[in-house]
Amino acid sequence: MKVLRLGHRAGRDDRISTHVGLVARQYGAEEVVFCGQNDSGMMESLRDVDDRWGEGTDFRHSDSWRPEIREFNGFTAHLTMYGLSLDDEVDRLRSKNLDELQLVVGSEKVPREVYRHADLNLAVGHQPHSEIAALAVTLDRITGIKRGFDDAEIEVEPTDGEKRTRKP
Amino acid sequence: MKVLRLGHRAGRDDRISTHVGLVARQYGAEEVVFCGQNDSGMMESLRDVDDRWGEGTDFRHSDSWRPEIREFNGFTAHLTMYGLSLDDEVDRLRSKNLDELQLVVGSEKVPREVYRHADLNLAVGHQPHSEIAALAVTLDRITGIKRGFDDAEIEVEPTDGEKRTRKP
Repeated sequence: MKVLRLGHRAGRDDRISTHVGLVARQYGAEEVVFCGQNDSGMMESLRDVDDRWGEGTDFRHSDSWRPEIREFNGFTAHLTMYGLSLDDEVDRLRSKNLDELQLVVGSEKVPREVYRHADLNLAVGHQPHSEIAALAVTLDRITGIKRGFDDAEIEVEPTDGEKRTRKP
Repeated sequence: MKVLRLGHRAGRDDRISTHVGLVARQYGAEEVVFCGQNDSGMMESLRDVDDRWGEGTDFRHSDSWRPEIREFNGFTAHLTMYGLSLDDEVDRLRSKNLDELQLVVGSEKVPREVYRHADLNLAVGHQPHSEIAALAVTLDRITGIKRGFDDAEIEVEPTDGEKRTRKP
């Protein structure tokens, strides 16, 4: 599964894009691609998380969303509040092979062409929304929460009252 | 349902806190309370969304999380990657009356006392995470996507290819 984040602006979008990356990783994305400005610092911090907490999501920059969408060999769903309802479309997404799924999340201004080039425009609610939340809820509906990350240096020891970690 | 956002810093946290507010509203929160700095501009922009898109979530500031948690008449779940698994605990949350549920989302440093004062520390995955995503997924599991917002001036006309809105 691939996640494509549009229109990243270094500085202004650091934290939002980082959250997009963390969500994608947490639900097992193989690849997260950031379009817009090339923000090596942000990607480095995501790679650091991946190194420590395990598994292996690739984070990379792309100059343009066009080849990422046009040349993707699979099904591309663009998450937007203007799209069709997730409740109605989730079975279509679940029927896809995860390797063949690309989820696109926008920035403040998404070019019209993205709407047209996507195979599906998908709304997690038709209200002003968070692209982070839209991505998380869509992935939660498709795959559920992933457990077990390979090659981690550290993992959480779940408790109901404090912060506890351990070596796997 | 009430959402409590800890440790807001004006400027630095504007967008993250705004996303928290939008997610809470989208899933039908009655009240969203921001602790930390009093950021009237951010709250005003959330109120504007609520006025245009309907329904009526209250957004307010609080000087301290203590009375918000201690005096809440119901069940408080603090969302943290160190907590117990949502998969295991979701039925407990669903069994609560929505009016009696408070969800707490943190900032970078959450005081230990919050862990102790919460009725439940709840993890949406035990990986480095997004508080926006954690809130969205928890609410999606409890209530699902809300449809129909009363008293809206505008609503989305869902399509699979463009941005279209209409008057309700």
